[in-house]
Amino acid sequence: MSESSVSAHQRPFTPQVVFDLLEKVRERKPLVHCVTNQVVMNFTANTLYALGASPLMSHAPEEATELSNIRANLLINIGTLTGPWVEDVHQILQAELKTGKKLAVLDPVGAGATAFRTNTAHEFLKTGAFRALRGNAFEIMALTGESARGQGVESFDEATVAKHAACALAAQHGLIVAVSGPTDLVTDGHRILILKNGHPLFTKVTGAGCALNAVIAAFIAVSDDAFIGTAAAIAVFNVAGEISASQASGPGSFATAFLDRLSHLHKADLDETLRAEFAT
Amino acid sequence: MSESSVSAHQRPFTPQVVFDLLEKVRERKPLVHCVTNQVVMNFTANTLYALGASPLMSHAPEEATELSNIRANLLINIGTLTGPWVEDVHQILQAELKTGKKLAVLDPVGAGATAFRTNTAHEFLKTGAFRALRGNAFEIMALTGESARGQGVESFDEATVAKHAACALAAQHGLIVAVSGPTDLVTDGHRILILKNGHPLFTKVTGAGCALNAVIAAFIAVSDDAFIGTAAAIAVFNVAGEISASQASGPGSFATAFLDRLSHLHKADLDETLRAEFAT
Amino acid sequence: MSESSVSAHQRPFTPQVVFDLLEKVRERKPLVHCVTNQVVMNFTANTLYALGASPLMSHAPEEATELSNIRANLLINIGTLTGPWVEDVHQILQAELKTGKKLAVLDPVGAGATAFRTNTAHEFLKTGAFRALRGNAFEIMALTGESARGQGVESFDEATVAKHAACALAAQHGLIVAVSGPTDLVTDGHRILILKNGHPLFTKVTGAGCALNAVIAAFIAVSDDAFIGTAAAIAVFNVAGEISASQASGPGSFATAFLDRLSHLHKADLDETLRAEFAT
Repeated sequence: MSESSVSAHQRPFTPQVVFDLLEKVRERKPLVHCVTNQVVMNFTANTLYALGASPLMSHAPEEATELSNIRANLLINIGTLTGPWVEDVHQILQAELKTGKKLAVLDPVGAGATAFRTNTAHEFLKTGAFRALRGNAFEIMALTGESARGQGVESFDEATVAKHAACALAAQHGLIVAVSGPTDLVTDGHRILILKNGHPLFTKVTGAGCALNAVIAAFIAVSDDAFIGTAAAIAVFNVAGEISASQASGPGSFATAFLDRLSHLHKADLDETLRAEFAT
Repeated sequence: MSESSVSAHQRPFTPQVVFDLLEKVRERKPLVHCVTNQVVMNFTANTLYALGASPLMSHAPEEATELSNIRANLLINIGTLTGPWVEDVHQILQAELKTGKKLAVLDPVGAGATAFRTNTAHEFLKTGAFRALRGNAFEIMALTGESARGQGVESFDEATVAKHAACALAAQHGLIVAVSGPTDLVTDGHRILILKNGHPLFTKVTGAGCALNAVIAAFIAVSDDAFIGTAAAIAVFNVAGEISASQASGPGSFATAFLDRLSHLHKADLDETLRAEFAT
Repeated sequence: MSESSVSAHQRPFTPQVVFDLLEKVRERKPLVHCVTNQVVMNFTANTLYALGASPLMSHAPEEATELSNIRANLLINIGTLTGPWVEDVHQILQAELKTGKKLAVLDPVGAGATAFRTNTAHEFLKTGAFRALRGNAFEIMALTGESARGQGVESFDEATVAKHAACALAAQHGLIVAVSGPTDLVTDGHRILILKNGHPLFTKVTGAGCALNAVIAAFIAVSDDAFIGTAAAIAVFNVAGEISASQASGPGSFATAFLDRLSHLHKADLDETLRAEFAT
């Protein structure tokens, strides 16, 4: 990990830091309550299991309060939103706010593609329940009103084009904001970390980004610094993917190999593969 | 199968008994109407296909009566229940009751984790439409009001801790009750069979238990003894998993290998691997 | 492709024609808006990604108009229809009609199994939004009121038994109609093409037919002749499956190998494997 760097005022981001958090996830098995889209529920749950965390998929307001007391964290993903679903999520977010945790993760799938998605993401953010937000550059820029190129929910812009938007969102809402792309960017509005792992095959597996947000929710649940937790989640996810891709024949075998690798990712894998550096 | 045992008043549970029922499923291809949760619909349908049965996924009350006339059995799984869904299922259960079959299988996912789940499972059971119920020890004990340790929908308690609860539920509702865990327990309130196959990787694949309940529904449809049918379903499912696990590198390749193995499980696989015994 | 044939009044259907359209899909990455059933959303999206197209899964009427302006084509699949869902789809179809494109693809899953499904398929067809329709012989014959043998949503009748029904439907609604089975049939009411690729393992993977309809939607979006586009989609899908089956150990590894193969299907694969001929 030659590119990782440490400055005087920053906590270091090393393979050891990442692996320690991964081990905490595996020991504590945080229960992640996923209110997510119908396309990716299965892959998200399997990713959390492979990670060593525990998934719980529910979108029923009737059990929102009870679940808020037993879960370690909450994920909201708007991928297949409908009017009634949005109403239900608002009730789930109210239950989350009553816990005082405010650690939830938002996946604003397709923000910018339609007003319904952009507005819903904004309404959810305004509740103050969220600690982190991850999307591609198109989605993140849409949330600050900046224009971005992109087609539908997939945008292959470099994450760094959304640096300004990410920092602005982070500062405005007191969030960790992560931007995915060929390189990934994470910021808390002050610190900016650039992560350079991953593989293009992730763009051929539906719900890869959605599953990553669930992994972020699991890491935040065991981290005392949500910025480092978010970055560690991305590092683990993308290093597992990068190693898996070298053994895959296409997107089908890649997804299978990814779950296998994530379930037994070693410290040595991070030592050999992690590439990350702080930026300004 | 050195541990299988036969007492004078019990039907034997041998590899031959299990395989004969598996062959019946493969010949008759029972149509299993699955009213199941959004996370596991895909894996459940693929498991039924691999088994040789026919899946039909529907939760629309508008077609409940017509489907009740063409299906071989009905599965209800409450994993992603909502208020409107519960109302729809009640209509589907009324249609089932009118057929007089009363062979349905209930999967009380997360019973005990929230009152909504526990109460819904109780309401469904009270209809009298069910012939079998399978869950983990946490869920089964929750349905009798016994306390159980466990986190969310996953509980790794031994199935045998729920022996009393399982027998009580079976007697109360006239059901076959199965409890999953490192060992599995099946009872009709009188007979108790302990099954010792399976693999921990099943706990890393979302919907493995849910898919097993669909397999139970298929076996009950071709069995004249639902207790033996339920046990045979568990035996086939877990033997296929146990053999697959030896060839897997993790949960991703395990799920793939499991579907492959289930699609061509042989008598010799059961002869070599099945471990089951009656208990008291 | 010894069986392909060209008559004076027909455009030829050769590996080159098929591959040229596949290359167009890969270059243009058409955005296919899928309003599909909950069982197959994941596999459908992954199939579109493997093909080189872009999936967008949404069933919210709130964003129907915006999505109608950015998508390349629309797929409607009634597999897990409910009353409210049918109402929402009518709004989505009204938005499609306003674009004037009328290129949508309908998958009438289970038509003939229940009146709700048959009637809903008819109502959707009457809107005039569709350019193509694909189902098995049971479903296609149900839409013309012909009787057909079959169990549930799966029918293994030969596609050719539905030749009359397919031609009648095509003429009545101005549609391309495709019938799947051990051989596949495609007609625009005048031309009839018989495709002889594929593998029985497709019948063991839930949503294979549903995913094929999404592929048809992608091909129609880049074709100036929807009949040839539909046939090319079926050819690509089934050739990829046929080659994958030779490397699979069962339905699990088949689905994985299929996505891999589809993602890098070559011209040579079509040259060696495609079998198609015009019929009368």
